[in-house]
Amino acid sequence: MNNNDNTTFTDVNTLGEFGLIMDLTKNIEYRQPNTIKGVGDDAAILQNDNEVTVVSTDMLVEGIHFDLMYTPLKHLGYKSVVSNLSDIFAMNAIPTQITISIAISSKYSLEALREFYDGIYLACKMYKVDLVGGDTTSSPKGMVISVTAIGQASKKDIVYRNGAKKGDIICVTGDLGAAYLGLQILEREKQVFLSHPGIQPELESSQYLIERQLKPEAQAGAIAYFKKVNIKPTSMIDVSDGLASEIIHICTQSGTGAFIEEGKVPLHPDTERTALDFNMDPITCALHGGEDYELLFTINERDLEKIRFMPEVFIIGEITDVSEGITLHTTGGNIHPITSQGWNHFTSTTTDL
Amino acid sequence: MNNNDNTTFTDVNTLGEFGLIMDLTKNIEYRQPNTIKGVGDDAAILQNDNEVTVVSTDMLVEGIHFDLMYTPLKHLGYKSVVSNLSDIFAMNAIPTQITISIAISSKYSLEALREFYDGIYLACKMYKVDLVGGDTTSSPKGMVISVTAIGQASKKDIVYRNGAKKGDIICVTGDLGAAYLGLQILEREKQVFLSHPGIQPELESSQYLIERQLKPEAQAGAIAYFKKVNIKPTSMIDVSDGLASEIIHICTQSGTGAFIEEGKVPLHPDTERTALDFNMDPITCALHGGEDYELLFTINERDLEKIRFMPEVFIIGEITDVSEGITLHTTGGNIHPITSQGWNHFTSTTTDL
Repeated sequence: MNNNDNTTFTDVNTLGEFGLIMDLTKNIEYRQPNTIKGVGDDAAILQNDNEVTVVSTDMLVEGIHFDLMYTPLKHLGYKSVVSNLSDIFAMNAIPTQITISIAISSKYSLEALREFYDGIYLACKMYKVDLVGGDTTSSPKGMVISVTAIGQASKKDIVYRNGAKKGDIICVTGDLGAAYLGLQILEREKQVFLSHPGIQPELESSQYLIERQLKPEAQAGAIAYFKKVNIKPTSMIDVSDGLASEIIHICTQSGTGAFIEEGKVPLHPDTERTALDFNMDPITCALHGGEDYELLFTINERDLEKIRFMPEVFIIGEITDVSEGITLHTTGGNIHPITSQGWNHFTSTTTDL
Repeated sequence: MNNNDNTTFTDVNTLGEFGLIMDLTKNIEYRQPNTIKGVGDDAAILQNDNEVTVVSTDMLVEGIHFDLMYTPLKHLGYKSVVSNLSDIFAMNAIPTQITISIAISSKYSLEALREFYDGIYLACKMYKVDLVGGDTTSSPKGMVISVTAIGQASKKDIVYRNGAKKGDIICVTGDLGAAYLGLQILEREKQVFLSHPGIQPELESSQYLIERQLKPEAQAGAIAYFKKVNIKPTSMIDVSDGLASEIIHICTQSGTGAFIEEGKVPLHPDTERTALDFNMDPITCALHGGEDYELLFTINERDLEKIRFMPEVFIIGEITDVSEGITLHTTGGNIHPITSQGWNHFTSTTTDL
């Protein structure tokens, strides 16, 4: 499970600071025509080809957001980028550039840093974004990553959280709860490994869930589809904290209620099976798990026909009057209020301003 | 010297994550007409009023870049913003927005966080920039701050590090070395305090130096002056790592040499006096101290007359042919090569990509 299986290690201190930059950026490629100046000056310069610039930022802390015992550094780099691009897509915008800052303790070798940057560059390639700046500094302990993602859009295309209207259809781009269960499996196998170091972890049967946790993807395809069929969601958010938290955000900001139909929430078969292994209700994993990076969005019902042909989309509920609250219609025919479990768990969560 | 002298403390965990955001952003004001959407959605939306967007980012780590024993949190917030705005000004651009992410351990109270944000908001007010996003998360130990500054400019106004030409005049906007000596004084008084907690620190006579360290300013006035008299420097960089490192960046990227006249480098009287107290040469503090956040820039000699009426400017040298190297002409009539001491000290420095 340990990702540090390189045979030779180079102490970053032997390189000097410019040597380290040169090494980590020597193969940098720019793919965005609007990147006028990337790394190497006081700031990056981006051509404003479109009406608005979209900016999102996140911070990831070792021991809080990731555990390097089971997170390969390349995956960590990839996920750090993808989770930020997801925020740009959630505005119905196209990400174009990122900046990455990291603080690392002296235990990290140059080879480990290169692995991390390999993941960053892979994400840049997959999503056609440019790394245009950042900062690499030392930390007394552990690793901290800060990513800022930048995108461009026409002002009229921007989709906020606050535009949902009564009668709008609630959709999600993919199955939920898998990333959370992937994390539970990795944590379980870590405990087994710590108690019995000789035992190999059993991860083969959980490949899908673990991949959803360690190497998530952002929903570029959904945004491209919206443009292609010329629809604009009335509201949108990415599922980073769990379906419950996200639908509450949309309803609170839109001044509406909503109901979610439990039976319509997409769950992967591995999610259903594994949730039961952990004595959990699969819908709980979808509602409160998070890190799925699917898009939750609402559309006017007149756009329903256009949405039906979307390659990956699930209709899971409807926006209601605010007086009806935010509820789950269970498969058993009951109605439960949806609350966000994450709200009072500051120590284990992250807070977007 | 301790900044945590509030009488009541609120554990941030009691607020919940949204309570914390609400508290820290409840008085947020937007001053930039191009801020369409600030905090509160997946990403901020900025109107592209000008041709290019300018982006810079920095990470500050407790125990590496700041010591909370002698750094009031309000000053830390202010400096975190200012040091990033300085990078935007160094491109001859106007900063318009910032995002701030912080990771903090549970030892920080709500009151401490408010103090930090007070400094951020004060800097936003002074420099007319908007806080449009960020992230507040927990850290197992210490405090990490990541700031991204965003600005706008016309493409033709952007000044890079690489445009200096032989014969250009080298200028700096203010005195150098003071921030470094301010840090030396604070470190000395910290050691005295740790050995003899009863003794009050002697800081009164060093107010100027300490203020340069704890509450630096960015050079908005210089950029405004350039616009007013219609001059464009041929190259520019902000002095964050020391004059030596910055002139080397300009010369390396421009493919030139340069000489700096020791006698022309502006030194505050307190810098000269205190350097001698520490048995240091004042010019060494200017060359290698850093954190002055003055602008180092070069101009074509035909612009010399326009520069002479600039409120704060010092002509300190000239760009030469690359074959002449980068040298200091000492007051004693000697010529010394200028080298950057910081290059091989990765563990104590920070590296802009």
